[in-house]
Amino acid sequence: MSGTLYGVGVGPGDPELMTVKTWRLISTAKVIAYLAANGGESTARAIAEPFIAEDAEELVINMPMRVDPDAGQAIYDKGAESIAAHLLAGTDVVMLCEGDPFFYGSFMYVFERLANRFKTIVVPGVTSISASAAEMGQPLCARNDVLKILPATLDEQQLRKELATAQAAAIIKVGRHFGKVKEVLRSLDLERRATAISYATQEQQIIQPIAEITDDTLPYFTTIIVKA
Amino acid sequence: MSGTLYGVGVGPGDPELMTVKTWRLISTAKVIAYLAANGGESTARAIAEPFIAEDAEELVINMPMRVDPDAGQAIYDKGAESIAAHLLAGTDVVMLCEGDPFFYGSFMYVFERLANRFKTIVVPGVTSISASAAEMGQPLCARNDVLKILPATLDEQQLRKELATAQAAAIIKVGRHFGKVKEVLRSLDLERRATAISYATQEQQIIQPIAEITDDTLPYFTTIIVKA
Repeated sequence: MSGTLYGVGVGPGDPELMTVKTWRLISTAKVIAYLAANGGESTARAIAEPFIAEDAEELVINMPMRVDPDAGQAIYDKGAESIAAHLLAGTDVVMLCEGDPFFYGSFMYVFERLANRFKTIVVPGVTSISASAAEMGQPLCARNDVLKILPATLDEQQLRKELATAQAAAIIKVGRHFGKVKEVLRSLDLERRATAISYATQEQQIIQPIAEITDDTLPYFTTIIVKA
Repeated sequence: MSGTLYGVGVGPGDPELMTVKTWRLISTAKVIAYLAANGGESTARAIAEPFIAEDAEELVINMPMRVDPDAGQAIYDKGAESIAAHLLAGTDVVMLCEGDPFFYGSFMYVFERLANRFKTIVVPGVTSISASAAEMGQPLCARNDVLKILPATLDEQQLRKELATAQAAAIIKVGRHFGKVKEVLRSLDLERRATAISYATQEQQIIQPIAEITDDTLPYFTTIIVKA
């Protein structure tokens, strides 16, 4: 019998924000898989670290930061095949995912390669959006609010249009798009209703009201919460 | 010194989908508070039940199903005051919230009454949206998708407009609005890209493709996931 592939959300950063189920699966896993960017440390692994068994085997999918799409796909192909080898041998594999596996996660690249061949179970996790609101001490949405999750890569016009009809929004992957986002927020008179958080619940967390930021770039892992 | 108010998300239903932090706070709490609808059982309490200490004191805010807004506010006032009495006596209070406290949660009514008077910590939880995607085995959003959370109470025109410009959407609080929602999905040719889930991760969970549902009403705790 083949093993089961588990895609587990480890939450936004604080290891205690992992679910009990994810904690149980990680601490009993014989094989752990994760993505590492550019040969560096994997954030998901760093979050899960306190719970990984000493003798667990680790499968690292090494993804360079700048890679052309075809080469990226080939890296996922190869990573999926090493996971598949364990599953075929009857061993379960637990793949660590930052936040929630199905919420803007790279787990989907492994999922689309293996879910049709092997039993696959996804364990949801706390998203960085929920963690951001909690850290800001500010309710995200209530009652009949429309909440939008908007990648900062959208163009100015789209961002403006979407923000104009939302009671609450989280703008994600801010990074070098911050200048544009700030301009859009200003034009909608939402600048004072928006707060940026970088690295939510991680050691280097920073919370800043948008109106006080003079830079045009923020870290990639920055979310802006807007309450209209 | 006053006690601390903790608003803890217990997740969508499966007790194992609670975070380790919430589990720790519940299992060591001397005073637990929660909302109960109409004198019935509290879903949040049912989820947390296995972890509540035997000698913990329980503060129930009893909220009738149909109550006029003023009477509802008075019930929150009274509930907040009994929580405040414990905090003033130096005892921490752990308030249980389904899903995530700041994501369409009623915790905000207690938060807005007490957070300016007492130290308040919110522990985020797994939302029913993340749980729904995991149970369906279907990625919710990826890359530069726009994701919208849309209450089913929106009128037809708003729903149609918002759905037309989203790559992914979760329509929440479906209940008696299902007929209208189905009509909107049909008019956008999204009927076959939408799936309903009621009571995600709870015992009575049901997953149904929209095109196969003939009823005009679904349970209130139904979410429809749409992938454009």
